[in-house]
Amino acid sequence: MENLFFKQVSVIGVGFLGSSFAVAIRKRGLCNTIYGFSRDPKNLEKAKLRGIIDNYSLDIREICEGSDLIVLATPVGVFLQIINEIKGVAKNNCIITDVGSIKGRLVYEIESVMPEKVFYIGSHPIAGGEKSGADNAKADLFNKALCIITPTENSNPEALSILTNLWKSLGSKVELMNPYKHDEVYALVSHLPHLTAYALVNLVSDINEDFIRFAGQGFKDTTRIAMSPPEIWRDISALNKENLIKFIGILKDNLSKMEGLLIENNFVSLENEFRRSQRLREKLK
Amino acid sequence: MENLFFKQVSVIGVGFLGSSFAVAIRKRGLCNTIYGFSRDPKNLEKAKLRGIIDNYSLDIREICEGSDLIVLATPVGVFLQIINEIKGVAKNNCIITDVGSIKGRLVYEIESVMPEKVFYIGSHPIAGGEKSGADNAKADLFNKALCIITPTENSNPEALSILTNLWKSLGSKVELMNPYKHDEVYALVSHLPHLTAYALVNLVSDINEDFIRFAGQGFKDTTRIAMSPPEIWRDISALNKENLIKFIGILKDNLSKMEGLLIENNFVSLENEFRRSQRLREKLK
Repeated sequence: MENLFFKQVSVIGVGFLGSSFAVAIRKRGLCNTIYGFSRDPKNLEKAKLRGIIDNYSLDIREICEGSDLIVLATPVGVFLQIINEIKGVAKNNCIITDVGSIKGRLVYEIESVMPEKVFYIGSHPIAGGEKSGADNAKADLFNKALCIITPTENSNPEALSILTNLWKSLGSKVELMNPYKHDEVYALVSHLPHLTAYALVNLVSDINEDFIRFAGQGFKDTTRIAMSPPEIWRDISALNKENLIKFIGILKDNLSKMEGLLIENNFVSLENEFRRSQRLREKLK
Repeated sequence: MENLFFKQVSVIGVGFLGSSFAVAIRKRGLCNTIYGFSRDPKNLEKAKLRGIIDNYSLDIREICEGSDLIVLATPVGVFLQIINEIKGVAKNNCIITDVGSIKGRLVYEIESVMPEKVFYIGSHPIAGGEKSGADNAKADLFNKALCIITPTENSNPEALSILTNLWKSLGSKVELMNPYKHDEVYALVSHLPHLTAYALVNLVSDINEDFIRFAGQGFKDTTRIAMSPPEIWRDISALNKENLIKFIGILKDNLSKMEGLLIENNFVSLENEFRRSQRLREKLK
């Protein structure tokens, strides 16, 4: 891991993840200057005041010109639009990555519009949760966290090596994964659980909103991610809809199975379902 | 709250909740002697060694005879059987309560077999979670936690007053609730979320168990309660099956609604569903 250093880094989107990335690479001494872009000047001003970014502009092309590393940290729904705006100014050997929860076809779509000497490879740090805003920026957010990198058969090996070392330098445990497999896995272990958490809370409001105050820690934990920003999860849902539709179907089948066991008074089999789940969940402890 | 003191207390079941109750009342100086009962002599020996109980017997009648307060802290499925075993030895003015998650018809069934001068009123402290065993006993478990007490039209007012003061002395915020309403509310904010957590983990194992290692904090929180003891949740599910069947149906409807919005590419409405959920969940923060 020799010589990992970026003279100029551009962070597109200075919310919780983008800001945390900025403070993390600065803390590890991996860069000289960090530029920030956001649609909201107030966020940029705040990020600059807090020393998260060195400077900003409301012109995204100005921000990206001459950077060695560009990190997309906006909602995934606008990645392609951003890429199309900046691809003309990205310098040769610039590495572009992102911190979004969607890969799959999007990765290939971004690749297909890349200039020859600009290298896009997707990243998905498994960190963040329901927090938002530069105020919460955490330099250690990625330390000891998993980071999925999703190269394709077209990825530049040197860029992949630099990106892998970058995340490792932030303390992340890097796993390489095919972009489509990524979206299947994360539909299962993240996207569907988000939709389910939203649905569980909505069920309470369907019956009686006031009942929410009787909830204990179990409900709080189970539905914590229902506090996640709706616009982010709208984009993720839209871009992973095929996997989500498939897994919602299977989840409904699993719920129907439990419903059937309740109706038949087959509590031995119901307990076995619980036990199968408990056993796997214990592995994550 | 004058003069709240129990000379002899019997705790039936010395798991996490029963043991925590024992150490809590002792810490607050609310009792003289605590007797424990369990089907497992090893648990009793451990609880005695740790000073959680003063003494034990494998004869539940011996444990309950002469007690001023008897607390059932076993799985709810055996409450009625225990009540039938001990009702003959309970002394006059003895108060019997429990710490179980099911009330409803069970409360009336227990009431119906009570001797005239023995008073059963149900309690449900909203505390505990997936922990188990006397090793984890926490004297402050009930402090600042909600405790639902479920008196009926038959409940003795003085016994209700004593029981209310007991939980308040442990720091709990007491709410009185009709037993049937209790089971509806807790199907919604606790029992169904448990079944859903079990189902989400089982969905991962249906697809590929190995994917579990890619899960982040969101999945961990959402499915933490899938580590809860299966036998306890079997009993709870069995005794609250009507409410669970009703709410599983509505949860499936809510999931189908999201599925439909994904199929129609109606992401504006999907975001509105998320937003409605986020807004209610924020109230619990």
